[in-house]
Amino acid sequence: MNGSEVSIFPGFINLFKGTFGFTDEEFSDLLSCFHIKHIRKKEFYLRAGDITRVRSYLNKGCTRSFVVDEHGHERILFFALEDWWIGDFESFYSGNPGTNYVQALEDCELLVITKEDFLKLEERIPKLKQWYAFKMGRTAAASLKRIEEIKTLTPEERYLKLLKKQPNLFQRVPLQYIAAYLNIEPPSLSRMRKRLSKKS
Amino acid sequence: MNGSEVSIFPGFINLFKGTFGFTDEEFSDLLSCFHIKHIRKKEFYLRAGDITRVRSYLNKGCTRSFVVDEHGHERILFFALEDWWIGDFESFYSGNPGTNYVQALEDCELLVITKEDFLKLEERIPKLKQWYAFKMGRTAAASLKRIEEIKTLTPEERYLKLLKKQPNLFQRVPLQYIAAYLNIEPPSLSRMRKRLSKKS
Repeated sequence: MNGSEVSIFPGFINLFKGTFGFTDEEFSDLLSCFHIKHIRKKEFYLRAGDITRVRSYLNKGCTRSFVVDEHGHERILFFALEDWWIGDFESFYSGNPGTNYVQALEDCELLVITKEDFLKLEERIPKLKQWYAFKMGRTAAASLKRIEEIKTLTPEERYLKLLKKQPNLFQRVPLQYIAAYLNIEPPSLSRMRKRLSKKS
Repeated sequence: MNGSEVSIFPGFINLFKGTFGFTDEEFSDLLSCFHIKHIRKKEFYLRAGDITRVRSYLNKGCTRSFVVDEHGHERILFFALEDWWIGDFESFYSGNPGTNYVQALEDCELLVITKEDFLKLEERIPKLKQWYAFKMGRTAAASLKRIEEIKTLTPEERYLKLLKKQPNLFQRVPLQYIAAYLNIEPPSLSRMRKRLSKKS
């Protein structure tokens, strides 16, 4: 794709051109390796059993990633908004079928690059490796912090943390999904929100 | 340090010389940037509020990493055995005081390298960056998988998973810590172990 086909989310440009100092030529090269993919609201981008062979940048829209436990219950892992990368991380690495579902909660626009194209690109633009190590470091840190939070925070603290970290979620994601993510019953979450909004 | 001062755990040598193809000279250079640190059983290597300025490889021994919630309860994040890297990941990145405690469960021997020395070493041995990206990728994948497990597995499944992944833990870590890690009451864990051992 070229830069004029879609309106690229500023975070994407800032990251590569700003933080990692890509030249205009390098950035064009990078962009040309991505293709655009659209998913309609409620459509699945990924299902358990699929193999993730691409990296996908969420340029527009909102998704939920979840797994299904042995009793058939959906367990939401996270919500992604613009500027997130989505997919089944483990499957991308191992090449084995994954466990994650990714479903669009709004009409979504993705920038997608295959593993092969990414590796070739890394050869041409070595600083892409730095970006990648940086991104992995951030993902690892965020996931470890998340485990800490699951282990230590009360439901109310988890709610307040999410509200601070992703305030837009509450306008874009049905409350029952947010409740499921927080492991709180939907009526309890509604009461909690009412109580906390009176306080502030 | 030089290679003759301590007996280096084979995993360390295999990883750098095997997987990442370090030459003997590069491996000596790497080793010379580490220093050895001993911690006695029950001693703390790290406490909440400390800043992690080093990377630490567990060459010998066993530790537990935990956080303390607002009610003063210890929440165990993970146990480390030989061939793990320990510390407060978030603090290492951000340079801010961390939240993690790391306590030795046996007498431990660590190979320690400062952030500064590591960065200098990366300049001399560029493939160290590859190792680092690889390690971050594995850490991120393992942490995301762990979140999935916390969200989907029953206590018995969590126990069996741990038994499969780190079978030696059960010989080296007091059962009450393992119970705490699994979020199972110690008497329930004992009963579960008895029941499952009869089955097999």
